[in-house]
Amino acid sequence: MEREHNLIPEDTLWKRFLYRVINRSDTRLGKLFDIVLLILILVSTLIIMMESVPWLDKKFHITFLVLEWVISLLFTIEYTMRIAVVKNKRQYIFSFFGIIDFLSLVPFYLSLFFPVTKYFLIFRMLRMLRIFRIFNLMDFMNDGYLIVKALKNSSRKIYIFLLFLIIFSVIVGSMMFMVEGGRPGFESIPQSIYWAVVTVTTVGYGDVSPITPLGKFFAVILMLAGYSIIAVPTGIVTAEMRNKRQNLEKICDRCGNEDIDDDARYCKQCGKKLA
Amino acid sequence: MEREHNLIPEDTLWKRFLYRVINRSDTRLGKLFDIVLLILILVSTLIIMMESVPWLDKKFHITFLVLEWVISLLFTIEYTMRIAVVKNKRQYIFSFFGIIDFLSLVPFYLSLFFPVTKYFLIFRMLRMLRIFRIFNLMDFMNDGYLIVKALKNSSRKIYIFLLFLIIFSVIVGSMMFMVEGGRPGFESIPQSIYWAVVTVTTVGYGDVSPITPLGKFFAVILMLAGYSIIAVPTGIVTAEMRNKRQNLEKICDRCGNEDIDDDARYCKQCGKKLA
Amino acid sequence: MEREHNLIPEDTLWKRFLYRVINRSDTRLGKLFDIVLLILILVSTLIIMMESVPWLDKKFHITFLVLEWVISLLFTIEYTMRIAVVKNKRQYIFSFFGIIDFLSLVPFYLSLFFPVTKYFLIFRMLRMLRIFRIFNLMDFMNDGYLIVKALKNSSRKIYIFLLFLIIFSVIVGSMMFMVEGGRPGFESIPQSIYWAVVTVTTVGYGDVSPITPLGKFFAVILMLAGYSIIAVPTGIVTAEMRNKRQNLEKICDRCGNEDIDDDARYCKQCGKKLA
Amino acid sequence: MEREHNLIPEDTLWKRFLYRVINRSDTRLGKLFDIVLLILILVSTLIIMMESVPWLDKKFHITFLVLEWVISLLFTIEYTMRIAVVKNKRQYIFSFFGIIDFLSLVPFYLSLFFPVTKYFLIFRMLRMLRIFRIFNLMDFMNDGYLIVKALKNSSRKIYIFLLFLIIFSVIVGSMMFMVEGGRPGFESIPQSIYWAVVTVTTVGYGDVSPITPLGKFFAVILMLAGYSIIAVPTGIVTAEMRNKRQNLEKICDRCGNEDIDDDARYCKQCGKKLA
Repeated sequence: MEREHNLIPEDTLWKRFLYRVINRSDTRLGKLFDIVLLILILVSTLIIMMESVPWLDKKFHITFLVLEWVISLLFTIEYTMRIAVVKNKRQYIFSFFGIIDFLSLVPFYLSLFFPVTKYFLIFRMLRMLRIFRIFNLMDFMNDGYLIVKALKNSSRKIYIFLLFLIIFSVIVGSMMFMVEGGRPGFESIPQSIYWAVVTVTTVGYGDVSPITPLGKFFAVILMLAGYSIIAVPTGIVTAEMRNKRQNLEKICDRCGNEDIDDDARYCKQCGKKLA
Repeated sequence: MEREHNLIPEDTLWKRFLYRVINRSDTRLGKLFDIVLLILILVSTLIIMMESVPWLDKKFHITFLVLEWVISLLFTIEYTMRIAVVKNKRQYIFSFFGIIDFLSLVPFYLSLFFPVTKYFLIFRMLRMLRIFRIFNLMDFMNDGYLIVKALKNSSRKIYIFLLFLIIFSVIVGSMMFMVEGGRPGFESIPQSIYWAVVTVTTVGYGDVSPITPLGKFFAVILMLAGYSIIAVPTGIVTAEMRNKRQNLEKICDRCGNEDIDDDARYCKQCGKKLA
Repeated sequence: MEREHNLIPEDTLWKRFLYRVINRSDTRLGKLFDIVLLILILVSTLIIMMESVPWLDKKFHITFLVLEWVISLLFTIEYTMRIAVVKNKRQYIFSFFGIIDFLSLVPFYLSLFFPVTKYFLIFRMLRMLRIFRIFNLMDFMNDGYLIVKALKNSSRKIYIFLLFLIIFSVIVGSMMFMVEGGRPGFESIPQSIYWAVVTVTTVGYGDVSPITPLGKFFAVILMLAGYSIIAVPTGIVTAEMRNKRQNLEKICDRCGNEDIDDDARYCKQCGKKLA
Repeated sequence: MEREHNLIPEDTLWKRFLYRVINRSDTRLGKLFDIVLLILILVSTLIIMMESVPWLDKKFHITFLVLEWVISLLFTIEYTMRIAVVKNKRQYIFSFFGIIDFLSLVPFYLSLFFPVTKYFLIFRMLRMLRIFRIFNLMDFMNDGYLIVKALKNSSRKIYIFLLFLIIFSVIVGSMMFMVEGGRPGFESIPQSIYWAVVTVTTVGYGDVSPITPLGKFFAVILMLAGYSIIAVPTGIVTAEMRNKRQNLEKICDRCGNEDIDDDARYCKQCGKKLA
């Protein structure tokens, strides 16, 4: 979520107007622009999905192609306009959304010269991430920002938890390889680790499941462990989220009360009017 | 949960009496009415379920038909009574429960003129929602109201979380389509997205599961991610629920603020000292 | 967890001694009694389990029979002793554990006169519940009591949540019956409801899974809903458990601070010594 | 996480230097040592995994063998150095990591004299646990320590919860054996208990699933129960983790109490005003 320092143009009036339409949503045209963009992104994503369905692609191949052309051209215009309009062009181009904008256009132009492969897909799909920019403008992301912040603050604990989980799964998987080794789904240690992760995360596809009584016994222990372990990430994030609920900067001048809600206008401990 | 303003009739005594029996449960007859209604709804739902089981329908077809007739007539009488009894008829008819009452009767009367299709089913099933009205009367829903309020307050965060989850699943599904593409269960992007959602929510049917080592590797990462992500909605609702534990009876005399913490001594909205 | 009022015998010395051995664990003999009982229960449960495995039962049928005889006789002696030793015999017999003790003995004596059926099993398995009594004595259950209390306090909210979950599953199951109706696993509404519950609770056996694209689309929505819903019971219990952590009766006389930990000896807000 | 009392050598300068390199990461060489060790552990683990994959082992058997030799020799040197360098040798050898270091070397030397069996595997895998020691040095484990402490503090509650869960699963499994007894997957009580655990922990492989309508009905109840029960461990750990959020740096000058809440102004153990 980049800051807009040095991005605002100052030179000409129409640039300033265009900048506002594209990057803000406080004008009628700006809102319209956002909505049209949102629809284009969704339509574009839907086309990519439908293209991958054989019978749909067969039937509507030309339609999809034309639509893809039109949308890609519109996105190209939008991308050019964004560059034209910002003051510090380099900053935009190498910003998170600048790279996304670029990457999601590349596959289309590459496909004009090279045969289309399914590996282009994932880049085209990156367009979906642009939805977040629009919502960002629409002042819808304050709550989302809180979630991201809580996740970021607890990220170290979550990394350690994941590290522990991976080592745990590797050891349990190796043990299971000793117990069930050779039976379908337990042909090697990596396979057994796959099973261990499927089990401990309670996904439980069932494509691999223990066969021998001893294997089932181990599986039961692993499941009970996984069922208790699931509490850890939840506990971490919940504790962090609780913390983020309070405006940490606010404090009452008179009584020093720090437990002040976001919407509070008076201190709930001493009744002083808050600044 | 509509308010009862303008619904209470004032004209005649028997209307007032009937209103009380139907809409309150503070009289003996009122309680009896509620219990009979509850039983009728449950029986009706059970019949619909059993009708769908081929061998049961074959054996008891006539019984089911007769019971359905009787119950539908009783519900029609009840519906008429409810309209007759309220003062502001339009308000009731277009209220949430008014529409439910109407919709759950329509299929029965339509089936007299048109051939019965299974699409009538879902409307008849809506009757189950009426259970909530009865429990509402029975003063059982205070706790339920707290849950609903906590969910409502955190709904924005949950929407953003779901949006993120959907975009995440779409991108992961597309990546998996590139890896496993063409193999059973990964024939198209929508199919792969279906797999991604099944995996990240830890449902894990196993009707689709990764086959190649690379696919399994991606699946393991997705599962570990899903296992950590599950903490987010839990954290959101838990944090909100903690907040909603606040004393609901407390209210500020001066400004009517109802959002008062347990330990508050002054209203945080207007600064008035609380009793 | 019954109270021991009127259960303590006062008449003879040996009765008082025996009572202490059986119902307390503050003597050496009392502890030994508990451990022997615990072992007997575990052995007895293991035998019942192993009896149900065909090849084990074939091989060790006589051994199991003899062990079952011996253990049942020991349990009978223990039961008789318990009755003999308490003052208010009726109160013990009709207490929770009294009934469990009786029910777990009945199948053995019935099997002397009637052919053994597998329905006796469940009663014999009830013996396992007696483990809780032993742990209760061993002063191990304080923490368990906190859990039970937290669950009890939030039971109303959990009931409403379950009610909502059931109605939700019934309606979703009915909708899925309309979509997938007739396909394997969706032959009737009850079957479809079974699928809905398997999905929404994220169990996901995979014995029933959606087949049509529309069915998969509905399933995806249901899964995302289930993934968010899971937060509700967690939120309820967590909020309740937090609450149980603080001694709710404690309050500081001087400053009125109610946030006092169990182990606090001084008010953390004003430093006053707590009673 | 053992303390380092009596482990620091005082005799010679090079011993002190080596000790610092091995056991600390505050020097350049010390950091390099940690990173090399980390890479060796990861490579070693990867080799063990790849050895278990038949076609990989066939192709690179000699490479794996040589690498295993080299790494094992390096680990042996490291182990010898660790012993040589510490003052109190016995304390290191019988410490948690000392035993891990030893156990992960034994299989290699045994394999020189005895035929290699897959049971050596698990000991070699224990090397992974050494990763924690390195992270410990890297000052990365403070957060991890918090998690471990929260789990330890709530371990008693979790044990009781697991005990309850096991007894619950055993009784439900036995009941299911009565209902579905003899059908595939429910051939014996232990099998049925396996199913019960798979279900209640929401893993749901689907290798065993109820077949009869009555069995499905029981399964639905079990799933709904499991869905509510999952809240319990989460609630326990979350509540504990909230508690552990307290400022760990804060300590009472007078009595040394470390359990000080963020909002505390006086020590709750001795009443001293906190700075």
